[in-house]
Amino acid sequence: MMDITGTYTDQYQLAMGQVYFLSGRKDQTAVFDYFFRKNPFKGGYTVFAGLHELLKVLEKLRFDAEDLSFLRFQGMHPDFLAYLKGFRFQGTIHACREGDLVFPTRPVVRVEAPLIEAQLIETLLLNMLNFQSLIATKASRMQRVAQGRTLIDFGLRRAQGLGGYHASRAAVIGGFAATSNVRAARDFGLAPSGTMAHSFIQSCADELTAFRQFAEGWPDNCVLLVDTYDTLKSGVPNAITVGKEMARRGHRLKAIRLDSGDLAYLAQRSRAMLDAAGLHDVKIAASNQLDEYVIKSLLEQEAPIDLFGVGTNLVTGQPDAALDGVYKLAAVDGQPLIKISENVEKITLPHAKQVFRAFNGEGRFLGADAVGIAGEPPITMMHHPFMPHKSFPLADCPLEPLLTPVMKQGRIVADSPDLPAIADFCRSRLALLPAEYQRFENPHIYKVGISTRLRDARDRLIAEHKS
Amino acid sequence: MMDITGTYTDQYQLAMGQVYFLSGRKDQTAVFDYFFRKNPFKGGYTVFAGLHELLKVLEKLRFDAEDLSFLRFQGMHPDFLAYLKGFRFQGTIHACREGDLVFPTRPVVRVEAPLIEAQLIETLLLNMLNFQSLIATKASRMQRVAQGRTLIDFGLRRAQGLGGYHASRAAVIGGFAATSNVRAARDFGLAPSGTMAHSFIQSCADELTAFRQFAEGWPDNCVLLVDTYDTLKSGVPNAITVGKEMARRGHRLKAIRLDSGDLAYLAQRSRAMLDAAGLHDVKIAASNQLDEYVIKSLLEQEAPIDLFGVGTNLVTGQPDAALDGVYKLAAVDGQPLIKISENVEKITLPHAKQVFRAFNGEGRFLGADAVGIAGEPPITMMHHPFMPHKSFPLADCPLEPLLTPVMKQGRIVADSPDLPAIADFCRSRLALLPAEYQRFENPHIYKVGISTRLRDARDRLIAEHKS
Repeated sequence: MMDITGTYTDQYQLAMGQVYFLSGRKDQTAVFDYFFRKNPFKGGYTVFAGLHELLKVLEKLRFDAEDLSFLRFQGMHPDFLAYLKGFRFQGTIHACREGDLVFPTRPVVRVEAPLIEAQLIETLLLNMLNFQSLIATKASRMQRVAQGRTLIDFGLRRAQGLGGYHASRAAVIGGFAATSNVRAARDFGLAPSGTMAHSFIQSCADELTAFRQFAEGWPDNCVLLVDTYDTLKSGVPNAITVGKEMARRGHRLKAIRLDSGDLAYLAQRSRAMLDAAGLHDVKIAASNQLDEYVIKSLLEQEAPIDLFGVGTNLVTGQPDAALDGVYKLAAVDGQPLIKISENVEKITLPHAKQVFRAFNGEGRFLGADAVGIAGEPPITMMHHPFMPHKSFPLADCPLEPLLTPVMKQGRIVADSPDLPAIADFCRSRLALLPAEYQRFENPHIYKVGISTRLRDARDRLIAEHKS
Repeated sequence: MMDITGTYTDQYQLAMGQVYFLSGRKDQTAVFDYFFRKNPFKGGYTVFAGLHELLKVLEKLRFDAEDLSFLRFQGMHPDFLAYLKGFRFQGTIHACREGDLVFPTRPVVRVEAPLIEAQLIETLLLNMLNFQSLIATKASRMQRVAQGRTLIDFGLRRAQGLGGYHASRAAVIGGFAATSNVRAARDFGLAPSGTMAHSFIQSCADELTAFRQFAEGWPDNCVLLVDTYDTLKSGVPNAITVGKEMARRGHRLKAIRLDSGDLAYLAQRSRAMLDAAGLHDVKIAASNQLDEYVIKSLLEQEAPIDLFGVGTNLVTGQPDAALDGVYKLAAVDGQPLIKISENVEKITLPHAKQVFRAFNGEGRFLGADAVGIAGEPPITMMHHPFMPHKSFPLADCPLEPLLTPVMKQGRIVADSPDLPAIADFCRSRLALLPAEYQRFENPHIYKVGISTRLRDARDRLIAEHKS
């Protein structure tokens, strides 16, 4: 879709990169963690998305001729420019599986690379993972309340510019079945979906003529928009007329779409009218400013809606608009590092780390992820990161390591699952997450603790900084 | 940046397009209006942005081989596919000038084109104009309260994926001076800006070493981030040490950057420390979750901050995330059309239209835009769109027509101003907009009325629909 080049970054990465280069530090080995501090939407979990798109871009990332000429014009050092000309990302990345459920404060991705390379990719990594994780999470919340109804992404016209492209991909990971976004459908193998706008009805002599013309053009995929003039007095009766005509010709009217007014009321009345006409298998689609709360409310009112088309609130991740993911340095040349902060929750964790998910006796998530130093012996006890007296025994729990190698020396080593497989994985993980973490109001907080070794290593570094 | 092709659209545009094509209606002449219903951010105006990017894309818009093969696989009709293969947008577009201030409910862009072409570009047009107008408006609100301080876009890492690209462009239209987004800077001729992250400090033996190394690498563009360990006890004193060393070598420390804590307090204390050290010309930059309200508050507290770096809230347009722009059919083959709605405010205006801005005796905006039928004689009276007894005389006001031709038969005919020129125009228009429309709290509502002829034409169509 887009030729992402080396300049898809923040200026300060290049400014630092030049200093790393000129001071001879570029090949120091750095370890960076990607994590976030808060689940979006006041929710209890986040769906991790964007990984395989990121890896594909990283494998091919180059500074092209335009990049180099721009940077030369900006006064970058000639030797650094020569380095950038040959730039390849050659780092190693461990990550959670795309589609997994992830929780605040612990590493979701670990990047080990020459310092300069790890720095230059930071912005790209954050840009892709933050946004797609936000949207996949939003989508999964709608999927949770949709009671098996079909969810369709209608968001491109209100998306944040080109951002709509990956929004449609992420929506499918979170449980959406299809998208109106044809380009995203083309590139990501999604099902495109959509039928008619009000303009089509307006452009015809009358609504019935418009419906007939559309049914003729799309005899096997005909969804009629019924609210252009008057939903119950004109739209639905005309749709019934055309639905019967189609049936006589051996076709089937697939659905009607409601796009304004009281959707619960109109769906009930429309369903009754369709059923009375014998059109029991004509479905009802609804759209218009939907989000997870409206969908939940509509279904609580037993609105007979079969398909929901969701636009703005899905693809822009309203009301949050951004996941607050960060990328923090944890070690250089094997030396563990922390960032001190007066806010203890913002003190980072040193070392290359692994994360383990604890399971309960029934094979579901226990509600605890433990972060340890990569390679340390099995963790038997995890500690609250900041409260010394809170700890939690893990000796009897099955633990699953979450960070697995996905890229080695710049080459993708993980299988690249297709989107349905990522969406399936997401669904399977949600099935393992107890309901109290999934509810919208004051969800349970998923515990994230640290191993004894990691805690001690961090506390030593804090003490060193203080002295 | 991105190869936008014909499939950058919603599926239903193609579904309708095929019916227009097969029913022989594709070359009917359609008139569509782009307008929006609500200013974002509870504000009193919207900055119109994205136009010249849109025009450039429209001039080159094609369905490429991948598009066509995807659509063939989706079962589109062979004749329609052959049409799409030769598709060129050949319509005519009238629009407000990019950077102008625009108001709800009246046409901002008018598209006149063969019905099928006008329909196929709808999604692209909405996607580009809605988003860039949203961000330019957000930026202009920050510019309004920044009292001449420099505003810099830091948003790429938290932007909505690829959306960050045009966000940086739009921010400059609204008054931002520079961006951290190097790719946007490269492609749009913006000033790139940025210096160092916490990771740079952490990667060195200590903060002072880090500052010295950076000053050596960037002697003429050195901004030091002072909050990695302790802003006032460590960061600022070390920056002063390095600032004095630089001065002795004939260079100048450009600025320090505060990125956490109480920015008002820290800026005041830092300023005092810098001044006491004789470093009066070292500026103070601040970042961390800024928006127009925080900037306003900081400056009301007289925080001596010279540069503001704004990220998430700028590039995602928080808290609104989308402008609600729509694209409505106003005529086909010369026949005026409306869309009826039970909500009278949603009844559309028929005919190809022109919009006039009224000026007061001092040459400032009067607070009234009048919409008339394109080509009608000078408007002397404008009417409230829905309230019959409200009208407003315009006979004595200078009126400026706002919609001018920018594309004819698919070719750009307007000059393409560069971004500084668009930003200048925006600034000049804001200077003409009285303050009561610019304030954040309950701004004055800019009147948008309709001409007598347009009102009568609309009312005739409503009456016809009722009968």
